Amino acid sequence: MATKRNAALARHKNGNTPPSHTRTISRAEAARAADSTGTPKGSLILVGGGEDRQDEMHILREVAGRAKGGRLAVITAASTQPEEMWALYKKLFHQLGVKDVVHVPVADRDAAFDPAVVDTLKSAKVIFFSGGDQVRITSRLGGSTLCDAIRKFYEGGITLAGTSAGTSCMSETMLVGGAGDESHKVGNSLLMAPGLGLMTNVIIDQHFAERGRIGRLLGAVAQNPRILGVGIDEDTAIIVKGGRFRVFGSGAVYVIDAISESYTNVSEDQADKTMSIFDVRLHILSAGDVFDLATRRPTSAKPGSVPPEQARNGAAAAGARQ
Amino acid sequence: MATKRNAALARHKNGNTPPSHTRTISRAEAARAADSTGTPKGSLILVGGGEDRQDEMHILREVAGRAKGGRLAVITAASTQPEEMWALYKKLFHQLGVKDVVHVPVADRDAAFDPAVVDTLKSAKVIFFSGGDQVRITSRLGGSTLCDAIRKFYEGGITLAGTSAGTSCMSETMLVGGAGDESHKVGNSLLMAPGLGLMTNVIIDQHFAERGRIGRLLGAVAQNPRILGVGIDEDTAIIVKGGRFRVFGSGAVYVIDAISESYTNVSEDQADKTMSIFDVRLHILSAGDVFDLATRRPTSAKPGSVPPEQARNGAAAAGARQ
Repeated sequence: MATKRNAALARHKNGNTPPSHTRTISRAEAARAADSTGTPKGSLILVGGGEDRQDEMHILREVAGRAKGGRLAVITAASTQPEEMWALYKKLFHQLGVKDVVHVPVADRDAAFDPAVVDTLKSAKVIFFSGGDQVRITSRLGGSTLCDAIRKFYEGGITLAGTSAGTSCMSETMLVGGAGDESHKVGNSLLMAPGLGLMTNVIIDQHFAERGRIGRLLGAVAQNPRILGVGIDEDTAIIVKGGRFRVFGSGAVYVIDAISESYTNVSEDQADKTMSIFDVRLHILSAGDVFDLATRRPTSAKPGSVPPEQARNGAAAAGARQ
Repeated sequence: MATKRNAALARHKNGNTPPSHTRTISRAEAARAADSTGTPKGSLILVGGGEDRQDEMHILREVAGRAKGGRLAVITAASTQPEEMWALYKKLFHQLGVKDVVHVPVADRDAAFDPAVVDTLKSAKVIFFSGGDQVRITSRLGGSTLCDAIRKFYEGGITLAGTSAGTSCMSETMLVGGAGDESHKVGNSLLMAPGLGLMTNVIIDQHFAERGRIGRLLGAVAQNPRILGVGIDEDTAIIVKGGRFRVFGSGAVYVIDAISESYTNVSEDQADKTMSIFDVRLHILSAGDVFDLATRRPTSAKPGSVPPEQARNGAAAAGARQ
């Protein structure tokens, strides 16, 4: 497969008119496909991992519903066991009424330059990234024809969904390490990597309350307060569309806004010193609440706008939780 | 012992001049003992649990140093194994140079009305509450002659120290439950109990980052934004004196100020709905930083004011942590 990749890269380098399968990835076209403000026409559904797969499955049902009778593609690149992951989601999405579910394993970087793989996605209404390790996604897809195609499809109007690592990979910069359950140390700043960049000015973290990750997300935004920190709990999603997101599911979404931060020691050279940061603004959003990414302001759900059964997970609804 | 308690309560009820051992608890005297502003002359050293007991022991060394050659009393009321706890701290405080270390087990509520127990504490320069279950402390000491005596000694100038449950019990209202590692649900509001009230307008939580407790502390302050939330990491302490506290130790202290909160759904009647709260102010303080409880403002440590070896725990200093 290396030849395909090299050929694609060579074409790119030489500036020749690319053949049809690479033409699908032109950034100029992508820009035209987006609306006049440059805002993508598509939606992102970013899940904090641990979505309910047994009971009401509100989140996966929402993802499945976006296929609207068309194709839903599952990218399992994040997983070390892609076949098991595919079998799981194929079953679930079939169960939720999607007939055309296809697998896009992206087993290596060459696959991300394979025109046949891009073709598989061309007719998809939804592309779903399953969980695992986000660096497995970005190291294979980053800068590939496949990644550019996915961006174009999203800008043109399809839904990109992801869970866990499949969520983290969407942002401009992604967290790839840093212990939960401890406060941030000044020297922990390097545990980040460039993401796919489908959502800019944001760092997204997942399994948020469950893995006690507020320390590492605060550490990330302290590096650069331009970046908004968004932490998504398990069985919880943000649905991003037109520069705003709405919260969906049973848990909370934490927005950390350090733009008005008055002091931090994060640039000091004492790496094992615990980080200080003063005057961070924190919002906690739950189902139905909306956040405007441009104005950085939350809006509460209208009373009664969220059916109670959509705001809790299946197990809780069934009384399994105390 | 029940007779002692009943006698003390009866005296209190009848308004008779109490005998000398209960006179030590008069609130009027306590007020006089405090300075003219009513601010206690003593200090609190509140530790988030898990203080280093093997290496540099910076925090226990600070507690020990407050004894200044005098008595240090250990109250093990929080523990189900008070003798083991006593043996541990006796050894540690001896090791740190305190010769007069005494044990005050407070094995039951009667002990908290025993004049002999109060007498043991009369000459103490430091009273240290070990960890366990904070309700074991408050259910025995709350409203007792012992508790009033401790308050008076503190107002008069001694140091009260506590770790873990021994820290939680100091505040006006204390958290006694609520899972870490999940976001707060609207209906979780009852997992609080009245504390000893030695620190007012504050709820203190401990083992903070380590047990992912920001969700429950946010839930607590959302109930009443007058209350400031203070979350203390393990091997970390706040030293409270004159309406301000300074951070000491290897971890962080989180201050959650909801006074400017713009919205919360916490008073809604849908108990299993996840809590929303917008516009919370969050400060993270590390060693040397100071917080003014009256103005609710943090001040950063002066550069170089904290020796590096005091800002990290022994294990980290020894390279045991990655």
